Amino acid sequence: MTVNLHQPASLVLHPDRLLPTDPRVRDIARRLYDAVRDLPIISPHGHVNPRMLLDNVPFRDPAELFVTPDHYVTRLLHASGVPLEALGVGQGPLSETAARAAWRLLCEHWDLYRGTPVRYWLESELVEIFGVTVRPSAATADAIYDHLAERLSQDEYKPRALFDRFKISALATTDDPCDDLAVHGALVADPTWSGRVIPTFRPDRYLEASEAGWPTLVARLGQVSGEDTSNYAGWVKAMEARRQYFISHGATSADHAHTDCGTEPLQPSEAERIYHAAVAGTATLIEAVALRRHMLLEMARMSTEDGLTMTIHAGVRRDHHQPSAARFGPDTGHDIPLRGDFTDPLRPLLERYGTHPNLKLVLFTLDESTFSRELAPLAGFYPSVYVGQPWWFLDAPDAIRRWRSAITETVGFSRTSGFIDDTRAFCTIPVRHDMSRRLDSGYLATLVAEHRLDEDEALETAVDIVTRLPQEVFKL
Amino acid sequence: MTVNLHQPASLVLHPDRLLPTDPRVRDIARRLYDAVRDLPIISPHGHVNPRMLLDNVPFRDPAELFVTPDHYVTRLLHASGVPLEALGVGQGPLSETAARAAWRLLCEHWDLYRGTPVRYWLESELVEIFGVTVRPSAATADAIYDHLAERLSQDEYKPRALFDRFKISALATTDDPCDDLAVHGALVADPTWSGRVIPTFRPDRYLEASEAGWPTLVARLGQVSGEDTSNYAGWVKAMEARRQYFISHGATSADHAHTDCGTEPLQPSEAERIYHAAVAGTATLIEAVALRRHMLLEMARMSTEDGLTMTIHAGVRRDHHQPSAARFGPDTGHDIPLRGDFTDPLRPLLERYGTHPNLKLVLFTLDESTFSRELAPLAGFYPSVYVGQPWWFLDAPDAIRRWRSAITETVGFSRTSGFIDDTRAFCTIPVRHDMSRRLDSGYLATLVAEHRLDEDEALETAVDIVTRLPQEVFKL
Amino acid sequence: MTVNLHQPASLVLHPDRLLPTDPRVRDIARRLYDAVRDLPIISPHGHVNPRMLLDNVPFRDPAELFVTPDHYVTRLLHASGVPLEALGVGQGPLSETAARAAWRLLCEHWDLYRGTPVRYWLESELVEIFGVTVRPSAATADAIYDHLAERLSQDEYKPRALFDRFKISALATTDDPCDDLAVHGALVADPTWSGRVIPTFRPDRYLEASEAGWPTLVARLGQVSGEDTSNYAGWVKAMEARRQYFISHGATSADHAHTDCGTEPLQPSEAERIYHAAVAGTATLIEAVALRRHMLLEMARMSTEDGLTMTIHAGVRRDHHQPSAARFGPDTGHDIPLRGDFTDPLRPLLERYGTHPNLKLVLFTLDESTFSRELAPLAGFYPSVYVGQPWWFLDAPDAIRRWRSAITETVGFSRTSGFIDDTRAFCTIPVRHDMSRRLDSGYLATLVAEHRLDEDEALETAVDIVTRLPQEVFKL
Repeated sequence: MTVNLHQPASLVLHPDRLLPTDPRVRDIARRLYDAVRDLPIISPHGHVNPRMLLDNVPFRDPAELFVTPDHYVTRLLHASGVPLEALGVGQGPLSETAARAAWRLLCEHWDLYRGTPVRYWLESELVEIFGVTVRPSAATADAIYDHLAERLSQDEYKPRALFDRFKISALATTDDPCDDLAVHGALVADPTWSGRVIPTFRPDRYLEASEAGWPTLVARLGQVSGEDTSNYAGWVKAMEARRQYFISHGATSADHAHTDCGTEPLQPSEAERIYHAAVAGTATLIEAVALRRHMLLEMARMSTEDGLTMTIHAGVRRDHHQPSAARFGPDTGHDIPLRGDFTDPLRPLLERYGTHPNLKLVLFTLDESTFSRELAPLAGFYPSVYVGQPWWFLDAPDAIRRWRSAITETVGFSRTSGFIDDTRAFCTIPVRHDMSRRLDSGYLATLVAEHRLDEDEALETAVDIVTRLPQEVFKL
Repeated sequence: MTVNLHQPASLVLHPDRLLPTDPRVRDIARRLYDAVRDLPIISPHGHVNPRMLLDNVPFRDPAELFVTPDHYVTRLLHASGVPLEALGVGQGPLSETAARAAWRLLCEHWDLYRGTPVRYWLESELVEIFGVTVRPSAATADAIYDHLAERLSQDEYKPRALFDRFKISALATTDDPCDDLAVHGALVADPTWSGRVIPTFRPDRYLEASEAGWPTLVARLGQVSGEDTSNYAGWVKAMEARRQYFISHGATSADHAHTDCGTEPLQPSEAERIYHAAVAGTATLIEAVALRRHMLLEMARMSTEDGLTMTIHAGVRRDHHQPSAARFGPDTGHDIPLRGDFTDPLRPLLERYGTHPNLKLVLFTLDESTFSRELAPLAGFYPSVYVGQPWWFLDAPDAIRRWRSAITETVGFSRTSGFIDDTRAFCTIPVRHDMSRRLDSGYLATLVAEHRLDEDEALETAVDIVTRLPQEVFKL
Repeated sequence: MTVNLHQPASLVLHPDRLLPTDPRVRDIARRLYDAVRDLPIISPHGHVNPRMLLDNVPFRDPAELFVTPDHYVTRLLHASGVPLEALGVGQGPLSETAARAAWRLLCEHWDLYRGTPVRYWLESELVEIFGVTVRPSAATADAIYDHLAERLSQDEYKPRALFDRFKISALATTDDPCDDLAVHGALVADPTWSGRVIPTFRPDRYLEASEAGWPTLVARLGQVSGEDTSNYAGWVKAMEARRQYFISHGATSADHAHTDCGTEPLQPSEAERIYHAAVAGTATLIEAVALRRHMLLEMARMSTEDGLTMTIHAGVRRDHHQPSAARFGPDTGHDIPLRGDFTDPLRPLLERYGTHPNLKLVLFTLDESTFSRELAPLAGFYPSVYVGQPWWFLDAPDAIRRWRSAITETVGFSRTSGFIDDTRAFCTIPVRHDMSRRLDSGYLATLVAEHRLDEDEALETAVDIVTRLPQEVFKL
């Protein structure tokens, strides 16, 4: 059982990983999984930088690919005492020395990730995509680094080649409303490229009037849209214009992330009044929150008109540790979830648009207690509502099983969003989708083994979840 | 695996459905289930219309029996775009054409229910009660409709025959305090009927002084009870009188459903003052809520005196979608749960009556996070408190397992209510109780297989749960 | 299956209890468990009275050992109608008659504990420590009582002998800041004793300025510490002094239990003002809460300086049933959990000290919804934060499994506290630690069986959890 340093532990993926251990159930799960494992990937929400695919330059080094930009990876190292600096966070491109040092830190702390999906994804990437055969450790770090660096220099490891190899049929990025989407346009115009890469409209910051810099942001929104954003009516027109611009570049959804999902409307005059105060920097925090809720309702109204699927990722305290945020920027591992609440906050929206034939509203949460209590009951009545797949901290084997267990009995499978990888780590895309397919196969197999579902229906459902369902929800 | 339209998929119930899949555990579960499967059904809380049993007229059609009045069924069709009108909701008796169309809509969307208890119940009813042998679908809808309609015309499918066949030893209905209970009286007086059908006192609306129509309601309460309900003291006397009336007609429990379960008392003069304001229509919402909490405490006091078991179903936003409520009425699928809270809200009640030998208080929730956090700890100390079985959205196999897992370690089995079907769908009663017995057998079998409980004790517990326990809790 | 009264059911412990039932998974779990089952016990937080070990007098009787002081045991009897008086609660030493009667009540209600960890612990203690071979019941109560009483009179059942037999390498008690720790000192000075028994600093009451008696408490704190506690600055100095005193007697941690874990600071002048008002008995409840949160932040600051590990047990309504508290005192079974909330309340503390190299902050909760939502994300970023093991109502097999499932995917194993028994029931210590080891072996075995972890790493982790981890977190 002890690890021989001269003979490092091997790294092997078992074909039945994540499937049920009971042999009778596993046999069913294998059959279901075989039917979906090689189907193309639809990735309707994520954070990949489209320039990577336009420019198609090789990934710089293993640290850039696996460590530095991925807060799933860096946060647990940080928790164990590794400074974010040492991992290259917030420092731009790293020297070879720094990149190797960051990679070595990951390998030296490989044990930290035992039992986590990060470990599962990293192992799958290393073995399946890069052909690594030994377990990362202090002893093997440099050899693996060299192996990976060599692979990254090959043409078949450049972004476009991997995109094809991953069988991604559609990839959505996440973009600022003022983005000119030139990269997306260039990709469409590129005759050597045929992949589908579409933008997603993400207007969060333009709804948060209490944040520093908001007046500047909406002023820029006015410039870009050609509307007068010194008043609320102009803000609405500007948003509508930018959504149309996004739609003309292929967007099919708009994403909204706020600490709560309140949608209480204001009187029009009150909305104007607060908006003016916010532009002048005199709105109170309470007023700014009220305005944001009013604006979110307005965004839902726009979705009923222009058809962008509306996704809400609610309930996170962003940048919990201000010193780290100040030094390393956002998305550095200390966004912490809050209690969720949907039933009352969404009521104004749903009373107006919950049965609107043109609205698709996908609700994501990090509060598991809302799965059976609020999300499934809402999606089980309102034609517009879908339960989003487990997200972020909950995008993990046991959490996904709990989610299926908590929501299926109220909404079945048809009122769910399909899998969303929501990642900025490009090489985890195939691995995350594969994990989801394995888990759904296992869940469905358990229903079959308990005689709650016939296998032909389980098979149909397994396929539906990764094909028709995301196409319907995200209008792809 | 593809369905041959000329040879529709068969509909068969496996004898081991819902039992553990591990063969060693399943064998234990089978033995436990065998000991309880045929025991009579005690149904201490539900919504069956007693007139059905008094008049004993055949069920009108399959839509009335399985679709139109059952919001468990209609809500998921609605979510998938089927208008409630098309299902006959809120339209009174349907024509044969409309009934057939509603039934066909259910069959065409049979896949929506995969993995849900609704599907499980419907399949069990169709096979076990009605002898259907093919899976519902667009292709088989009409043939099944005809099959069911033919069965419904037979004497053995009339309500009284089914009541006997289901082995229901006691059935509680849910009734308005002003109800004259003539139907219950007529059943008792009927020499050709020997079943036990008892009313339940459900005074919710009389405690909600902020609701439109409340002054009219309490005025009527005064008329029916012969008390002067223009003041609070008279309201109390009227309630006491009507409870006595119910008790004289066999009632053993009173049911209370409000958005919260606050029980903070008011000063007597303050209660009078708010009551008067409410009668005059000038009470504020906050005053009305305070009055309701005071009244709920008063109802607990009455229970200690007259012995009616007090059940609380707390934490639901009723009629979430007002447009649907306005058009189709209440109980049409859009009551949505809220966060639960019991520890502090119930404290005034429990400090007064929590150890009173005559009080039995059963707490139901739709917020799973309260299972281990509040309900089990309360029931694990207060002699008056019992944890209610999973209810509504949680009356489902996985949710029931989670409930047992979350509460048993704190309260064992003795502080639980026994199974409550809480249904208006008559033919689901045996099926729901059977589901519960299977799940409890599985849970107990797992305890045995993990060597946490000897099998003789598991067997005794399995029987106790469906016999002595509901008799004790509901004083039957 | 019926119990023959002349041949009582036997009481036997299965060697595989609590391990997974699937034979392939169980085989792995057995190997992991074998590696940890006999390792010494580290008990870094609990409520054993150290005088017991100093005086080493035999346990008085089975009631004192198993029933009367243990609210885990008495509460469920109370819920079932047994008065706390009849169990000897709050009555000091019992006569032999009273002790026997209390024991008999437990045996007569043995069925109440089916499925609970209390039952599991009691059975393990009776069999493994005391050699009981028949199941407790009305029929066997007296014989078992006599058997136990006989054992208790033997030298090898005296506290020190049991301490050795249990292989306890370190045992922390819980102590008032004004305690002179003479007992701990005497144990250290005793040449016939070599066990490690250390105090824990538990200042709760000194932070709750709204509680009756608080001015008296802080006055006494002033006397004991030699500081002037008539002002806040003196209170701080007094606390610092007492912490040093505890550290000089071996303490390595300070424990804090409040209804919430707010840490919002006050302006220094405002803290002084409220403190003065509180000493004068004129502070409002809101002011007292604000002061307590300020004080809790101050305690964290002290921990960064003196190195005491800070544990927080938050979110319990103590003495929920005031009549019982008045009659029987605290800790008599009616402390009831509240909703948990960590993300925002702890933010002031974590912004200041969350990355401080000298702080170790262990967070315990009774609200399972916070496991994946708040505790794991916090511990997954902040180097100071650890997720506390399931506590109290959650110190139970299924709850521990849910905890591992909910937190491991975010924090792995390294950010957890190791097992804490937190008990005043001395003989449950080995049994609780053994339960935890079995459950962790089962959890790790499942990861191995699902091919999410190699067995050599699972083995290393199983050992780490019970050796290095608690040593690191509690600086032992």
